Amino acid sequence: MRATVMYGAGDVRIENVPDAELVEPTDAIVKVTRACICGSDLWPYKSRKPGDAPVRMGHEFIGVVEDVGKQVRTVKKGDVVVAPFAWSDGTCEFCQEGLQTSCLHGGFWGGTELDGGQGEAVRVPLADGTLVVLPVGRDDALMPSLLTLSDVMGTGHHAAVAAKVGLGKSVAVVGDGAVGLCGVIASRQLGAEQIIMLGRHPDRIALAKDFGATDIVSERGDEAIEKVRELTNGNGVHSVLECVGLEQSTLTALSIARPGGAVGRVGVPQIEFIPEAKPTFFDNITISGGVAPVRAYIEEFLPDVLEGIIEPGRVFDRVTNLDGVPDGYRAMNDREAIKVMIEL
Amino acid sequence: MRATVMYGAGDVRIENVPDAELVEPTDAIVKVTRACICGSDLWPYKSRKPGDAPVRMGHEFIGVVEDVGKQVRTVKKGDVVVAPFAWSDGTCEFCQEGLQTSCLHGGFWGGTELDGGQGEAVRVPLADGTLVVLPVGRDDALMPSLLTLSDVMGTGHHAAVAAKVGLGKSVAVVGDGAVGLCGVIASRQLGAEQIIMLGRHPDRIALAKDFGATDIVSERGDEAIEKVRELTNGNGVHSVLECVGLEQSTLTALSIARPGGAVGRVGVPQIEFIPEAKPTFFDNITISGGVAPVRAYIEEFLPDVLEGIIEPGRVFDRVTNLDGVPDGYRAMNDREAIKVMIEL
Repeated sequence: MRATVMYGAGDVRIENVPDAELVEPTDAIVKVTRACICGSDLWPYKSRKPGDAPVRMGHEFIGVVEDVGKQVRTVKKGDVVVAPFAWSDGTCEFCQEGLQTSCLHGGFWGGTELDGGQGEAVRVPLADGTLVVLPVGRDDALMPSLLTLSDVMGTGHHAAVAAKVGLGKSVAVVGDGAVGLCGVIASRQLGAEQIIMLGRHPDRIALAKDFGATDIVSERGDEAIEKVRELTNGNGVHSVLECVGLEQSTLTALSIARPGGAVGRVGVPQIEFIPEAKPTFFDNITISGGVAPVRAYIEEFLPDVLEGIIEPGRVFDRVTNLDGVPDGYRAMNDREAIKVMIEL
Repeated sequence: MRATVMYGAGDVRIENVPDAELVEPTDAIVKVTRACICGSDLWPYKSRKPGDAPVRMGHEFIGVVEDVGKQVRTVKKGDVVVAPFAWSDGTCEFCQEGLQTSCLHGGFWGGTELDGGQGEAVRVPLADGTLVVLPVGRDDALMPSLLTLSDVMGTGHHAAVAAKVGLGKSVAVVGDGAVGLCGVIASRQLGAEQIIMLGRHPDRIALAKDFGATDIVSERGDEAIEKVRELTNGNGVHSVLECVGLEQSTLTALSIARPGGAVGRVGVPQIEFIPEAKPTFFDNITISGGVAPVRAYIEEFLPDVLEGIIEPGRVFDRVTNLDGVPDGYRAMNDREAIKVMIEL
């Protein structure tokens, strides 16, 4: 079968790899019908060294079940399924608590050992815990929005939950990528009164407004902080969604939270230390979030997607096929595209 | 009147200062009857430079109201009152939310402008918002425990609340000072099942056990982390109370939280950056807490103290008078004493 392999920074190739095959009795084989490229795929795309072992890529996919192991009970051949970006058993104590990304027996797609989502098929470990059956056909018009349940919609929601977004709250979203945009959707769904998007790209700003952003701050650094304070009676916002992971974005996020507020981190941190240890202490700012247990959120958002109440699939502004994946990485890295969907 | 003044590291003096007098119509004058020395007073005691302006010290006191300004309504001459370590109006939006340490018009005792608690009397700004009347006589036997409501009991409780301590949870307390010991009391009151105290001093360990600690970890650094994991099926604890503020203690605290757990910071940070930005992200560990709004907790704990259900006053293991304050600083800094009470 064919799949996406990353060799080094800027070096993404489509190659023939061994076919996905059942190994464990708890596995399923899923023939991928939709996948996508993630903002977090761009970190290795920017920084991976040539000497590093080539890795299979992709952790967001929807597909049709082609085969299942003998112990699989909840999915069967022919089911259309969505996979979250981490696989998990669904039964360990962390899964029971809704933190499937810390599953005692789970893991993440791709790398050197497992299939990635950006390929023709995937061996899915722990299929019963991992996959969610979708009550639609494989080419349903809702596919783009359903595909966001594999990562960005759940990740944006996780940021909002971690940042304690709630009825009447003021929210700021740092990061105008797909996750930040989904964070706007989640904040509105959670009842936020004011949603400030920090961003400058006209297409992203337009989408943020459609999703429910009430204010746009296009300044950067200290000027952005100043502007958010102006918009919030000088106090800052109750909730900040940090959807980037860089030092500057983290600094901005921590600086615009009001005393007693919370910052939900979902941008994969590119830093070893969290800044502002003292100011956040004196202002009692909570720093929460992390790698999102999107498996816990799929069923929560599925009805809203099926009924068209939310349309997170609008974050996809480019569609390609498997051969177009390398150029998709380039387009996202150059910020030509917000998020690229792959149709197989 | 006489009061405590710190000139530099290790240089604490009892001096004559101007008498406390009403300035604003919202002020009260409180004649101090009990005060104490705080672990946080030891930071300037260790590090203050000789050239820095001398500062008045002390932020924990109980006393008798001697006079009130014309607008004061809730306290009157003769009332026995306890003051939290920050003064606040009780009416601004942050006070209404229970975050009196971020009061828009409040502040902290001592320094170069205001009286400190370690003196004969204090001008209390915003007396209505700040002071809480105690239904006991000025020399009641419960005074030591009531005095802890000015800081350490509320601060230990704040750490526990920030760390999401609750019924059946596992808790670790980093820091065996008065705040950590009060954190043990708070954790037990909040229903924790397992309370692990990290500490080595026999007298502090004994008190921690009396207060409800179920396990003691006397190791340090990586060995302490290993030991806590052993005690918690390898996972770490749900809740960590960070009651020190140093880099090493923060590192330990963040390393013993289980995935999805929380660290409540109340040790005044002596660091600019919070370590472990990546591990805490991948484990979804919440970092919360800060300078404790103890004013919010005084009424909550007052009944428990009055009924003898909790005895936080046992953290005082030395009593002195105003002249003994300099030696009290020395004794706490040398870890001869857990916490020193001052009787006037």
